[in-house]
This record gives sequence, structure tokens and C-alpha cells, in this order.
Amino acid sequence: MYTYRLVINIRVFPMKKSVSPAWYDQVPPKNSFRSVFKWGALDQFKHPKAELVELLKKKFEMSDDDFKEKIYVGDDIIENVPKSKLSATHIKAFTAIVGEENILLDDYSRVKYGYGKTLHDSLRLRRKIIENLTDAVVSPRDKDDVVKIVQYCNEHKIPIYPFGGGSSVTMGVEAVKGGITLNLATHMNRVLSVNETNLSCTVQPGIFGPALEQELNNTKKNRNSKNNFTCGHYPQSFEYSTVGGWIAAKGAGQASTYYGTIEDLVICMEWVTPSGIIKTLDFPKAAVGPDIDQMFIGSEGAFGILVEATLKIFHYSPSDRKYFSFVFKDYESGLKATQTIMQSEFYKPSVFRLSDPEETDFGLHLYGVMDTPVDTTLKVLGYKEGKRALLIGMVDGIKSQTMLTNSLIHKICIGNGALPIGSFAVKKWMHGRYMDPYMREDLQDYGITIDTLETSVTYESLPKVRDAVRAVIKSRPNTICMTHTSHYYKQGGNLYFIFLVKMNDIEEFTKFQKSILDAIYASGGTMSHHHGVGKMIAPWLENQIGKNQLDIFRALKNHFDPNNIMNPGGTLGLDLPRGSNE
Amino acid sequence: MYTYRLVINIRVFPMKKSVSPAWYDQVPPKNSFRSVFKWGALDQFKHPKAELVELLKKKFEMSDDDFKEKIYVGDDIIENVPKSKLSATHIKAFTAIVGEENILLDDYSRVKYGYGKTLHDSLRLRRKIIENLTDAVVSPRDKDDVVKIVQYCNEHKIPIYPFGGGSSVTMGVEAVKGGITLNLATHMNRVLSVNETNLSCTVQPGIFGPALEQELNNTKKNRNSKNNFTCGHYPQSFEYSTVGGWIAAKGAGQASTYYGTIEDLVICMEWVTPSGIIKTLDFPKAAVGPDIDQMFIGSEGAFGILVEATLKIFHYSPSDRKYFSFVFKDYESGLKATQTIMQSEFYKPSVFRLSDPEETDFGLHLYGVMDTPVDTTLKVLGYKEGKRALLIGMVDGIKSQTMLTNSLIHKICIGNGALPIGSFAVKKWMHGRYMDPYMREDLQDYGITIDTLETSVTYESLPKVRDAVRAVIKSRPNTICMTHTSHYYKQGGNLYFIFLVKMNDIEEFTKFQKSILDAIYASGGTMSHHHGVGKMIAPWLENQIGKNQLDIFRALKNHFDPNNIMNPGGTLGLDLPRGSNE
Repeated sequence: MYTYRLVINIRVFPMKKSVSPAWYDQVPPKNSFRSVFKWGALDQFKHPKAELVELLKKKFEMSDDDFKEKIYVGDDIIENVPKSKLSATHIKAFTAIVGEENILLDDYSRVKYGYGKTLHDSLRLRRKIIENLTDAVVSPRDKDDVVKIVQYCNEHKIPIYPFGGGSSVTMGVEAVKGGITLNLATHMNRVLSVNETNLSCTVQPGIFGPALEQELNNTKKNRNSKNNFTCGHYPQSFEYSTVGGWIAAKGAGQASTYYGTIEDLVICMEWVTPSGIIKTLDFPKAAVGPDIDQMFIGSEGAFGILVEATLKIFHYSPSDRKYFSFVFKDYESGLKATQTIMQSEFYKPSVFRLSDPEETDFGLHLYGVMDTPVDTTLKVLGYKEGKRALLIGMVDGIKSQTMLTNSLIHKICIGNGALPIGSFAVKKWMHGRYMDPYMREDLQDYGITIDTLETSVTYESLPKVRDAVRAVIKSRPNTICMTHTSHYYKQGGNLYFIFLVKMNDIEEFTKFQKSILDAIYASGGTMSHHHGVGKMIAPWLENQIGKNQLDIFRALKNHFDPNNIMNPGGTLGLDLPRGSNE
Repeated sequence: MYTYRLVINIRVFPMKKSVSPAWYDQVPPKNSFRSVFKWGALDQFKHPKAELVELLKKKFEMSDDDFKEKIYVGDDIIENVPKSKLSATHIKAFTAIVGEENILLDDYSRVKYGYGKTLHDSLRLRRKIIENLTDAVVSPRDKDDVVKIVQYCNEHKIPIYPFGGGSSVTMGVEAVKGGITLNLATHMNRVLSVNETNLSCTVQPGIFGPALEQELNNTKKNRNSKNNFTCGHYPQSFEYSTVGGWIAAKGAGQASTYYGTIEDLVICMEWVTPSGIIKTLDFPKAAVGPDIDQMFIGSEGAFGILVEATLKIFHYSPSDRKYFSFVFKDYESGLKATQTIMQSEFYKPSVFRLSDPEETDFGLHLYGVMDTPVDTTLKVLGYKEGKRALLIGMVDGIKSQTMLTNSLIHKICIGNGALPIGSFAVKKWMHGRYMDPYMREDLQDYGITIDTLETSVTYESLPKVRDAVRAVIKSRPNTICMTHTSHYYKQGGNLYFIFLVKMNDIEEFTKFQKSILDAIYASGGTMSHHHGVGKMIAPWLENQIGKNQLDIFRALKNHFDPNNIMNPGGTLGLDLPRGSNE
């Protein structure tokens, strides 16, 4: 059973450094396009390492010269945008509701809160293309403000675009019909209560991940509770996304394999819709008709505005965590081991990520392992480049449980020919996980586009979907396509595709992206596992779920929002012309 | 920590037997009222033991004389009921769809398939009161039949009452508006496929619990699979309820604390509604809009007819199971221990049931423990009658996991002053669990009414709801009220109330039941945890979930069934006059 009992502690070996390109590493000019499309904090950066640049040069047949001149950096100031279409009367009305300090009408704000972090946004904004503009950014102070705003907008048929962290990668927040953007993060961003008895917390929709976890992780000190807590929800966008966004887009955190995805974590909510307030009850389960919460989770702002959510919380004890990393000889063994682990009846790991061979080698490059003695050892033992697959993970829980799960995972992985490589790889990933998106801008400055698409699959369809989607991505010469599964269930998991192409043309990219989405659809994956549909993927929705099923969403839309003021213009495919993905 | 390490294996000691009443123990006359309201198989019985009779005599101040004459046994034959209101044309049309052999028009069938197992049904039928009648019982052979029937009924506005196992205890199947009853168990009762890779099975709605488990538990032998499987769903009505009923009523099985309730177990479904067919996808999770399955689970036949469901399945290894039973010194310690177990981060037991003191003592009486040396030992150790609380449970999973969970449960229970009493009590309960409802008819034959109501609560509200509901039940002199929690969550659990009263008058019982439901509502419990709403609890629904929330159900109803042909007449409160519970 135990083929190898040797545990290798991988360490980074210093490598020959090539000269780094001159990355963009200052705060972008105030009110510039770049300050809108740049990921994350304006003063934070994570530049590609020399090893990655070397890899890209090789892959894309680029030279040092190609990294000398940046293109479309977007340093220009946003100005002279089309005038707000809101009448003075409307602006006066909103001012009366929220106060002057809570309305932004300047050019920059009207762009900034009208876009998310979709690659298409960045491609456009780099070129100063502003296709859509919100007419005013309104920050409600509380639920009462939201009620008044929604009533007013409904009466006057003014579109409302809810905005949380603005991290949507599916054009979820784009104000395609003008109107107002509701910035929920300005004021409605607090933890209202933590209930230690019921293991729940009640929060406002505009709270960001770090603020929520900061509050929950320190309840012993700050709230005299017996335990510290966690919500267990850590999406890639954790630092720049809000609870409201997680719920609206139906997100999943990186530890969802244990904690569940957002639809598992919501206990009850309060929504303000044009038709009235919807408030659900905090029972752990009830047989009093269909689940109303589940009608709103994933509604992407098309039905109403979330004003309060009660979420499950869990005991937080990071010192009892176990970390593991394994290298499998091939992807198939990794798939088999992970499926076996998920389908066996024992307690599950929280983080559980299997990379395909291309992602594995890319990762080993990035971590500086490639071409070191460790890499040589791996190769000698039969874990060969181009074949091997990396599994990393973490077990949360009380110590005796995390120890048991860890040992069972070891047994199953080793039984499938894996080499345990300690906790280095997973800790490295943990450490850097929120910073990776920062590299997108750096690469795009030199004409390299990195983007992601993702889907959900059963174990049966996983290999087929992965191969089909990968084939389409790789059919473009010199393309990097990395795939991992990072959310596991007993019935299947997700597939997350990261692709890098030497490409910087909007039309070309749109066409390429469409071919990938077509491949996901045709091979039998869902159009999204956790990014959501937004306005970007909406054209595929009706084909995927079927007309009768989309008609249910239309019926609910008509019930909650008969005047179509909530996030109109394509959200969930509700007001799209037929055949709009053709 | 370990107060007592002694494990007592309780054995049944022979007791002085009193003379048993002459229980009804033959098959009821063919086509009799009793054959309609009798629980379970017509030739099966579980009569109250002598100990129970003695207890009841004492409690209800009854003598042997009170057990001599049976009342309202319902042996009369059902005949001369009002004629079917369906025209010959309609009957011809249904015959053309399903064939003559699949339509029943006789008096007996029109009563039998128009009632469930609600106590109110039995109270009425014992007295030959037939308030409502179905006009024809139609057994579709497949989905196509269902489509044709629904289309025809929709066109001609004929009510349809879906019927699975007929085990509803909330008047869920009663044909209050006449029309046809659709008997889904006659033909549509098969396992269509078992998918070992995706851990799922696809079944027809009319399959009963035992047939499903029989098929899943033996897949190694019958389907050459590597594992045997279980669905993990064992409601009290397991033997006489169907998958369709579980889904429609939003049920929960006795092992739900690990396996989840039915809303967790459904992967995808196909429903035939008057507005068209709704078919959902088999992905483990997706972010493609709100969850359509959750709009149908708990819809209680008011939106359409379920024709196919894909359910999660689990590896089945009963030999790895662990059983446990504990006696706590008081109910509060039991509550504290069970909450601690549920909220700690380790793998959970499947069966987990805590009885309050009255149920505990009642159980010890029933199991023949009361007044034996074991009972004396318990009392000497401080586990006193009227105070002590019994916890029983079971852990399913692989052996190392069930051992760990079992030992952690022991540690927490003993830490809360509990005495472990081995596996006797839980095995005794396991053995008899499906037979207990058979005693209802025996008791009612002598004017004793036993019924149950149940609710869902958070840990915070549990003591308050239990006390308030119990107070109302006990306010009636000489009443037995037993309470247990048998479905646990991190946020709370259910409360299941079993009450026995010397009472046999319909109006008096209805009033009594209403006072209990009012108490559940007023104290803050849900109107149901897993029985469902039916037509019995419907009058409370709008107050509980609120008008705006019920309006969502109305909007969905209007979308799926604009002519209100699906289970009309009060289901989910959709077509009730306001204030109908006043």
C-alpha cells in the first residue's frame, strides 16, 4: 500500500535571475482608467517572478524587447464622459433620501462603480472605451434608505445596479441601462450580531471578507465568547468582495469542500424588492413550503437588494489544522484518489485542490522547484514533467478529527501512487492565494492576457469536459491552459481553467472566450460553478437550463420587479433577445 | 471528566403481566372503513404491551372495564357514497390515456385514495364520515401518461390530487375539491439507474422506502458494483411512504443528522406542471441562477407531478456502525451535550435522539427497565425518574471514523454527567421503530388518542418552545406528553411532541390540536420540521412566513398552475380565505 514513505520537504533553491521588466508599480494617477480596472488595492502589487517571465518568453516566443514598451496602460484621467441622464428632480429626490455626501455624480465615480473586474472591462477601459455609465452612485445608509430608493426608482422606472465589492468577472455590475448604482459597501458593512448559541452571525450586505473574518476570528477577545469563529468562506476575491456579492452571484470559497458554498451557509435573509420586503426565518430546516432563500441566492441583483443576511459560523481553531500536499504520477491517479476520498464516509478536508499536469509544472516553476535537486528526485521516482499532478489541501476541525482525516487522505493518496511532499506547497499557495490576480495588469501591459473560466461537473463528465475545453483553448497556438478542481462534492466538482494567451485585441479575445464558453456548454459542464452568470454568460443560460426553467426566473422577476428596474440589461438572460449567443 | 466509566448493559427483566385487552388483530373486512384508516399492512399489528396498558390505566384513571368494549372500530363496508361527479366523457378520456385497468371508480377506492393517515382522517372514517371524495383513481404508467392527464385536466379544469404512499399526517392528499387522484405508486415505482461514479440513483416517484433501500443495499450482488449503497433516508413512515411524498412534503429521515434531509438529498428532478415540463440538471453545484429544485421540494403537489428524481447515495457498510445510548441526570445536561456534539468540528452521528424526562421514563417502562435492578442502579447513581433524559444514536461511516466519533460522543456525554448504557436502548428502538404507529388504532379502539406534532427550533429557542408547547398539552388533565429531538443541526434541531389523551370526540380533538399548533406558532417554532403543511396546518402558514413570502408561492402557483388544478383546496395556504385559523 505505502509505495513511498519518504516525505520530501521542498525548499526553494536560488536560481539564476534574468533581468525583470519594468513593471508598473506606482499608485495609478488619481481618477485614471487604470485606477478603475486595476485589481485590488491601488498601492499593492504582485509582479510576475523572473521564472514566470522566462517561461512566458519561451512559450510566447517573446524576447526582452517585447517587455520594454507597455501598451494601453490606462493612465489617462477619466473626463468628459457623457452627462448623467438623471434629471435634477431625481437627483434632488435621491439627495433627500441619503444626503448630499452619499451621492457621487463625478465622471470618475460614474465609471468606477459601473464596472467590475471582468477582463472585458479592463480591455475596454485600457482603451478609454466607456460603453456604459451609471448616472449616479448612491450609498444608502441603512435598510430604510434602500426601501425609499427602490420605491422611488420603481415609481420612476429608474434602473438600479447593486454594487458590493465590484469584483464580478461576469459583467455582473455593469450599468448597461444607466440609472443609479447602489454602493452597499459605503455604510452597510457591519456585523450586526454574533450568536454563539445558534452558531450564526447577522451581517449587512456590504461587509468585505476580511472585515467579517476579523470580527469572527476574535470573538473571544472582543465579545467574551467561549470560542472564536469563522464563516469558512474564502473566495479568491475574499479581500475585495462582499457578503452581498457572494450571495447574489452564488459563490464558493476555497474551503467549500468542508464548509459548503454560499447557498449552504445562508440561514436567512432580508431583501428589498420593488414589490415589497422579503424576510425569511432563521430555522435550521422547516417543511413550510419551498425554500425562499434559495430563490434569492444566485438572483444576481435582478429581484431586489439584500439588506441583511444571517450566516452559519463555525468554531475556529487554526492550530488544529492539518496541511497536506501530494504529487501523483499522472492526472488520472489524482482524479481517482480525490474521488475516492470524497466518496468515502469520513470527515472531509476544507481546502482540496488537484492541479492537472500543465498547472502542476507551472506551479513547480513558480515555486522555484523546477530544475532543482527536488525536481530531479521527483523525476527519478517517476513523477515526470508533463504527467505529474499536484494535490494540496487542508483539514479544519478538532485535532483528533483533523489527524484522522489527514491520515486517511495519506493512505488513499499513497495507495494511488502519490508521493507526500509535506505542507510546503499548500502553505505557499495559502500565503500567495489572494495576491495572484494582481499579476493580470502586469501581463496585460505587455500584451499577454490571462483570464479564467469555470464550470461544474459530475465525476463521470469531468474528464470529458476538461479535455474538450482544454482542446479548444490549446487549439490556439502558444497558449497556456491550466486546470484544477478546487471545490469537491460526493457527486463531482468544479473545473477551473486559467489560460494565458499572447493576445490583446478585444474582438479577438471575445471570440476566443466565446469558443471556450461554447465548449463548456457543448461538453456538458455548467456555464458557471461559482462566478455566476452576469451579463457575460447570460446568452448561454437559456440553452443550458432550458426555456421552461428560465421562464420560472422570468415569472419570479415579474413578481418581484415588474418594471424591470433591478440590474436590467441581460442579467440571468431575463431580458435578452433569443439567440443572443449566436 | 469521566464521572462514571461503568457501562451497564440493560437487559429486559420479566415483569408481572396483567391481562391484555382483546386487541383488534385480524385483517379488517374487505372494503371496510378500517381498512382505509388502519396504519401500514392490513395483516400486521403491534399491540401495546401490558406495561403500557398499566401505565395508561393509571394515567387516565381507567379500569379493566374500560378495555372491554371497543368503540367506532370502523368495520362497516364503504358503500353508497355520493356518485362520481366526473362525466362519462372525462372518464372515457382518462381510460383512453391509461387503459381501463388503471382507473378505479368503486366506492372503496374513491375513499381509500382520498385520505391519508392524519388522525383527523381516522376520527372521521371510524364514524363513517366521508367529507370529501375523489371522483376517480387514475394510475399513470409513465411520464407520458402523466403529461396527457395533466394537459387534459388543465384544459377541463379537473382537480388532480397526487398520491404516493398516502402516509400524510397533515391532510396532504385529501381530495377536497373532487376530481381525480393520481396514484403514482401503482406503476411508477422503479429504480431507473444507479450511478456508482456519481453516487446517485434515478428513481420514479412512486417507489417506497423499502424497495429503494433493498435495491441500493444489494448493488454489489445485483449490479456488480464495487460498493453497496444507501440513500440514508429513513422517515418513520419509511415502509409506507414514497420518494415523491418525501420530496413533496419536504421530509426528513431518522438518520438525517448525518445524511441530510430530503432537500439535501435531491440532485435533480423532472416535474410535469400544467404550464409544461420542468427538468433540472444533475450538477453537484452551479451558479446559473436560483435553485429550481428547491422551488419544488416542499411544493406539496400544488405546482405539478414529480415524474423522476435523482438522489444522492452513500456507501453502505452497516458492519462499521457504532451504536450508543446514554442516560443524563437531567434534560438540560442532555441538551447541553447534544448541542456541544453538534457544534464541535468532527464527523456527525446519523441517528441522534434525545428524549425529555417524560419520554425517557415512558421508554424505560416500555422496554421493561422500570422497577428492575437496572432502574434501581440508575436511581442510586442519581439518574432519577422524572428528571433523567435518554440519548440514543448511531454512527455510520468507515470504521476508523465511526470509532472516533463514538469516542468523542462518549467523552462529551460523560463530561456532562451521562451514564453510558451500551447499545441496548438504541437497538431496541431500531428494531421497533417502524411498528410503533400500529398501536394508534388499538388505543383509539378504547377511546385513547395518540397523535404527534413537530416543529423546528434554534438552540436558543428550543427550551422555550418545548416548555410552551408542553404546557399547553399538559394543561389538559391526565395527558401524556413526550418530546424528543431527532434531527440535529449546528444551528438547532426539531422538537417532536407525542401526546396521548383520553379523548375521542372530533370537535374536542380539533380544538385541542389547534391549541397546540397555536402554541408552536406563538412560542416561535416552525409550523413543521418535516411533516409538511398540507391542508391541516395551512391556515397557520401565512402568519408564520408572512404575506409577502406566501405571495411568492402564489406567484409560482400562478405560473405553474394558473387554473388551480393541482392539489387545490388549501394546500400551502394558496387558496385559503384570510384568517382561516381564527
